[in-house]
Amino acid sequence: MDTVSRIDVSGIDAYWRAANYLSVGQIYLRDNPLLTEPLDARHIKPRLLGHWGTTPGLNFCFAHLNRVILERDQDMIYIAGPGHGGPAAVAHAWLEGTYSDYYPEVSQDAAGMRRLFRQFSYPGGVPSHVAPETPGSIHEGGELGYALAHAYGAAFDNPGLVVACIVGDGEAETGPLAGSWHANKFADPRRDGVVLPILHLNGYKIANPTVLARIPEEELLKLLEGYGYRPHVVAGAEPAAMHELMARTLDEVFDEIAAFKRGEIPRQPMIVLRSPKGWTGPAEVDGVPVEGTWRSHQVPLAGVRDDKGHRAALEAWMRSYRPEELFDADGRPVAEVRALVPEGPRRMSANPHANGGELLRPLALPDFRDYAVEVKRPAAAHSEPTRVLGGFLRDVIAANPRDFRLFGPDETASNRLSAVYETTGKAWHAEVLPTDENLTPDGRVMEVLSEHLCQGWLEGYLLTGRHGLFNCYEAFIHIVDAMFNQHAKWLETSQKIPWRRPVASLNYLLSSHVWRQDHNGFSHQDPGFLDVVMNKRPEVVRVYLPPDANTLLSVADHCLRSRDYVNVVVAGKQPVLDLFTMEEAVTHCTHGLGIVPWASNDEGVEPDVVLACAGDVPTLETLAAAAMLREFLPGLKVRVVNIVDLMRLMPDTEHPHGLRDPEFNALFTVDKPVIFNFHGYPWLIHRLTYRRHGHVNLHVRGYKERGTTTTPFDMAMLNDIDRYHLVMDVIDRVPGLGTRAAHLRQRMSDARIAARAHTREHGEDPEEIRNWNWPGR
Amino acid sequence: MDTVSRIDVSGIDAYWRAANYLSVGQIYLRDNPLLTEPLDARHIKPRLLGHWGTTPGLNFCFAHLNRVILERDQDMIYIAGPGHGGPAAVAHAWLEGTYSDYYPEVSQDAAGMRRLFRQFSYPGGVPSHVAPETPGSIHEGGELGYALAHAYGAAFDNPGLVVACIVGDGEAETGPLAGSWHANKFADPRRDGVVLPILHLNGYKIANPTVLARIPEEELLKLLEGYGYRPHVVAGAEPAAMHELMARTLDEVFDEIAAFKRGEIPRQPMIVLRSPKGWTGPAEVDGVPVEGTWRSHQVPLAGVRDDKGHRAALEAWMRSYRPEELFDADGRPVAEVRALVPEGPRRMSANPHANGGELLRPLALPDFRDYAVEVKRPAAAHSEPTRVLGGFLRDVIAANPRDFRLFGPDETASNRLSAVYETTGKAWHAEVLPTDENLTPDGRVMEVLSEHLCQGWLEGYLLTGRHGLFNCYEAFIHIVDAMFNQHAKWLETSQKIPWRRPVASLNYLLSSHVWRQDHNGFSHQDPGFLDVVMNKRPEVVRVYLPPDANTLLSVADHCLRSRDYVNVVVAGKQPVLDLFTMEEAVTHCTHGLGIVPWASNDEGVEPDVVLACAGDVPTLETLAAAAMLREFLPGLKVRVVNIVDLMRLMPDTEHPHGLRDPEFNALFTVDKPVIFNFHGYPWLIHRLTYRRHGHVNLHVRGYKERGTTTTPFDMAMLNDIDRYHLVMDVIDRVPGLGTRAAHLRQRMSDARIAARAHTREHGEDPEEIRNWNWPGR
Repeated sequence: MDTVSRIDVSGIDAYWRAANYLSVGQIYLRDNPLLTEPLDARHIKPRLLGHWGTTPGLNFCFAHLNRVILERDQDMIYIAGPGHGGPAAVAHAWLEGTYSDYYPEVSQDAAGMRRLFRQFSYPGGVPSHVAPETPGSIHEGGELGYALAHAYGAAFDNPGLVVACIVGDGEAETGPLAGSWHANKFADPRRDGVVLPILHLNGYKIANPTVLARIPEEELLKLLEGYGYRPHVVAGAEPAAMHELMARTLDEVFDEIAAFKRGEIPRQPMIVLRSPKGWTGPAEVDGVPVEGTWRSHQVPLAGVRDDKGHRAALEAWMRSYRPEELFDADGRPVAEVRALVPEGPRRMSANPHANGGELLRPLALPDFRDYAVEVKRPAAAHSEPTRVLGGFLRDVIAANPRDFRLFGPDETASNRLSAVYETTGKAWHAEVLPTDENLTPDGRVMEVLSEHLCQGWLEGYLLTGRHGLFNCYEAFIHIVDAMFNQHAKWLETSQKIPWRRPVASLNYLLSSHVWRQDHNGFSHQDPGFLDVVMNKRPEVVRVYLPPDANTLLSVADHCLRSRDYVNVVVAGKQPVLDLFTMEEAVTHCTHGLGIVPWASNDEGVEPDVVLACAGDVPTLETLAAAAMLREFLPGLKVRVVNIVDLMRLMPDTEHPHGLRDPEFNALFTVDKPVIFNFHGYPWLIHRLTYRRHGHVNLHVRGYKERGTTTTPFDMAMLNDIDRYHLVMDVIDRVPGLGTRAAHLRQRMSDARIAARAHTREHGEDPEEIRNWNWPGR
Repeated sequence: MDTVSRIDVSGIDAYWRAANYLSVGQIYLRDNPLLTEPLDARHIKPRLLGHWGTTPGLNFCFAHLNRVILERDQDMIYIAGPGHGGPAAVAHAWLEGTYSDYYPEVSQDAAGMRRLFRQFSYPGGVPSHVAPETPGSIHEGGELGYALAHAYGAAFDNPGLVVACIVGDGEAETGPLAGSWHANKFADPRRDGVVLPILHLNGYKIANPTVLARIPEEELLKLLEGYGYRPHVVAGAEPAAMHELMARTLDEVFDEIAAFKRGEIPRQPMIVLRSPKGWTGPAEVDGVPVEGTWRSHQVPLAGVRDDKGHRAALEAWMRSYRPEELFDADGRPVAEVRALVPEGPRRMSANPHANGGELLRPLALPDFRDYAVEVKRPAAAHSEPTRVLGGFLRDVIAANPRDFRLFGPDETASNRLSAVYETTGKAWHAEVLPTDENLTPDGRVMEVLSEHLCQGWLEGYLLTGRHGLFNCYEAFIHIVDAMFNQHAKWLETSQKIPWRRPVASLNYLLSSHVWRQDHNGFSHQDPGFLDVVMNKRPEVVRVYLPPDANTLLSVADHCLRSRDYVNVVVAGKQPVLDLFTMEEAVTHCTHGLGIVPWASNDEGVEPDVVLACAGDVPTLETLAAAAMLREFLPGLKVRVVNIVDLMRLMPDTEHPHGLRDPEFNALFTVDKPVIFNFHGYPWLIHRLTYRRHGHVNLHVRGYKERGTTTTPFDMAMLNDIDRYHLVMDVIDRVPGLGTRAAHLRQRMSDARIAARAHTREHGEDPEEIRNWNWPGR
């Protein structure tokens, strides 16, 4: 039967009008929600904040998708790329009853509607954007660019799910969104759900037309076909005709989705929706066109509180939706509107995929201790930490075939995690040649040369209740600084919302780090992601710098078990010394920091100097320095403290991991020099410790933007984190060391010059450095 | 005459072989550059670093473009998106003689060739990537994504220029690159140069195939046509056939470019070059295929130093280029090779556009004092700083019609710079509707909803010798953190290269800042770009926080005159009090910080407390707090210090703007409490001042990740930077203030509670706050 003869177009229109009415009410009203009396200035909010322009289009899609859900019993969630259309998502959740389920004070009646209107973008209320507070959402509106990436992340491993994803035409101009279309080459129609992109061309962004709305339609369709989709155009402005067209198109599209999943057609469908910006809003205000122009982007009638003409226009606008047909006298949606609301979890506002913690299963984790490297004697053998971790991750993948994925921008092998390919491949849905390796449609490793896609996929995957890890070169992770910020803020807000269930943490493994850029150079050197991360609330961020393979295993296990955090783990792929047995590693990581006894000689006494270190390369240099000091200045009492969990340095009043002052003082002393050798920018350590008692005695070495393509030890020397310089630092700061120390200092200075000269002459570090043999061993 | 009958294909091939030979030599050899003796282990570098895979393709393009330059006397520069192919750019510059011009020790003979090989990716040598050290380059290789954006930036306002831009197929997967294709909608064929994209599909990235190489060709061509280009495919592996095909295609393409510039065809051409990765390199190594696979990405023969078989393969590979035909006995390129080298500045390696400082003209700047707001009495009237700045920028644009552009992600009007539209429009080369405003093909305002494009365009524009300013919402500027990092590093390196002439600074205006997110919410709140910026070397970064309109004008003038820096200016668009007359503003900005005398009451004596402030909203709150203290605790000596130039806080040993300790101590005292109210994250101030004498007395207020969509004053209160809290801070920290202060403290606490309650009740700040009237005025 033909779509239009079968369905209730007027019911869809009623639902749409109800949603539009509720959207306008949220933007403008703080009282008189049902317009039971003429609109008066006192009913209007003093500050009018919100975005109308995109909202009617979002509501249009909600209404029509509900019809499909009801007819096909379709499991579906909704991602509003133009998340600034918050009123739409809130209106929809209220119409579906979910809003009142989660927030009983916002009841589904006139009193609740008044509250719904009043709270919107109001102090103490709810944000103007789609946000964690919004039922049914996994996608923060605001910064644009990530809607499709989130949609694909949500679809992975959810074979029955359709993720409807509204792409605003402004968002479509951003780079990350433009790159995200190609995510279809990484999704498997059988194993994964289907993303249904709805490119919503309403023609304008804030103050300008958009590119995709103004190129010839032939060019637009080629572009979308070139991205690998089958576009269907729904264009118009007349509601009745548009309802029929949208309904017919959706029937075709969902038939195509079914055929695509059965493998009968090679391309998935998508929709191009052309509708006026601010559709159904005021056509003109003060003599200039508003509907269908950029002027409807935010609040089309700005003067409603003081200008009677504006207020009358607002009232006429709201009454044009005929609220008396949509809500009963008590403000409840009438049966015709409710008829379009699916049952229980089929409601997009209540779908558990959009509150992923509800679906979260703990990972089945093999015992990380089984992957330990044997350490008979500390600092006697070498391992590549990430290679060791690769074995653990391989078995994590094998044990969790539907709940865990590994993401990376073409760097998983380079980061030496290749053991994972013993159990799985890389997801790939394009041509495969005989020389290719490890490509398979159902691979669990997601490799695409886009940090934005990796991050967006992982966020979408986690927020729908799964687990994952993003491995990335340290320097390139800044590409997703802005995305990290939003995700951390999402988590922080979610933690305070009772109905949002905890989700798995977002885990970063940063390798190929600042100290080992063998193939690259100065442009690749930047450890500053840690600074970006530490700017977020302590409730949500964790930073770990395991110095060897066994500590990395212990940290990784901890991170994979954690919830609602962002965990950043920095670990090298190059060989480093094995320092801790697995038992010691567990203890060390549990404490987060501790004295390295075999590298210290201060047993039972206060040390003369503390050598602190965080990060694998800085730790090795510190251990080498300590060894030289033990040999050449045996009377000097040296304590070596290694820090794995950077948050331990913060005051306990500021971070749950923070050391209490007495603990800190016991470790670092209150009056002895502390030479702190750090992986990142040195001022980060000062920032974490400036309230500590002994802070004035703290001298931090770290990366200070000195580098090029050079040898590893030359990099260390360029930034003064090398063993020789550390010894010089100690001698400069511990008083009364005498002539022998002065001679040693000269020797260290000479050793630096000699090492530099050797490197320039031979193109590699001196042999004793390359093999990490230091004087004194 | 047909291309192939006209041109010297074998000459092109000779040039290509010479470039390939020189590229391989750079990766492997430190001696025996002409293979005058059999290759021995001692000729091989100990560490083999570099990227071969992309290099022969880059060389192929160089050779063929040189032929076009010679035939058409074409002004052209070359952007190597796969900048990891550094050996190609260096080889080309050496063949053209530019390398020896800039680096005479690397002469164009055997001794120079030996040096050329040895220095590459060698300690004390040159980076393995295209870098500032590379003649003819404005584009750092490394992080991928920005090649096309840089190319368009270089082409703007250079009507005679062609910018050849190699887009690697790995880079094409990144979001920023995917979005950059649409830059053609913002370029004017008459006013601007033409970008010639060469999509180089060699099939692989580091360890994986690439998406664009593995989708059906029909889909690929649709995609590129959808982006608005006319693609020409050059595909093959057999050199002779490929030379003919490339030469023919380039003739067509440059004819089309001419027709496009004359307006005869609507779409610009581009090339899809399909050639094997690692073309002409070893077909197989140790029994596995290498040429044409991802295995040729870096160093195809890894064991040449120790493995005789590998070494023999390397020698055979190098000899396959027949060096004896390419270089004379002294190592000089033979005439056949030199025949393809253009004259002087037509050489792409010596084109002045690629060393933009050579072409830089100072801006014609109107006197910024002419735009001053009149300030009869400080803090008595209000202005919107960015609106005032807009008038100045309008006249900067008018006075520099070919040298200055304003960039912004659809936020120029929102940031209240709309006065610029009195003199120019927004560049736009797509459909225009009657309701549109200010769109014109030759507009000087570049608005696209992509921070990546804005940043990339501006970088390309500056590095080719022009000027500009990027205005952006503060929260969204994190999107380009990674791009900022690379540009800052580029500038820092360039400053040390004598032949690189200074270029105009990259100027950011961050508005709609963290304290005024009226339309947005928590997801938009982040002042952390300052932290990212401050991580770079002091030589290249400057941060300014002008508190009012006149100081903003003074700062903007200073930034537009500066060279080789990144200047970050944070200034609000909302009304703030006018604090400084223009004369005072100039003095204040020249000092970078200073006492605000009319807000202080410590004349002639040491203050009891210092109220420091940086940023417009924090400054207003501080001034209000000072006024209350003056009124209610008149015996308390309060000094207000405002900081415009954040770098003044750093020690003079660490930043050229840093205050010497005696100056710092004189302003801030060494023993009095300093309550510092800061625009950004508070720890940034601690980080800048931790070495200062009085640091223990410093108490910093700032943004601590507390926010939502709420009123401006509620935002201040949520983060404790509000006037009431500052007074409480003073009372808590100045000893012996007595009962009156205790009462005042209670009053302040009550005022906060009342303000919060008022805001919740009325949806806006109390009237006395909204009008910035504080008790005591």
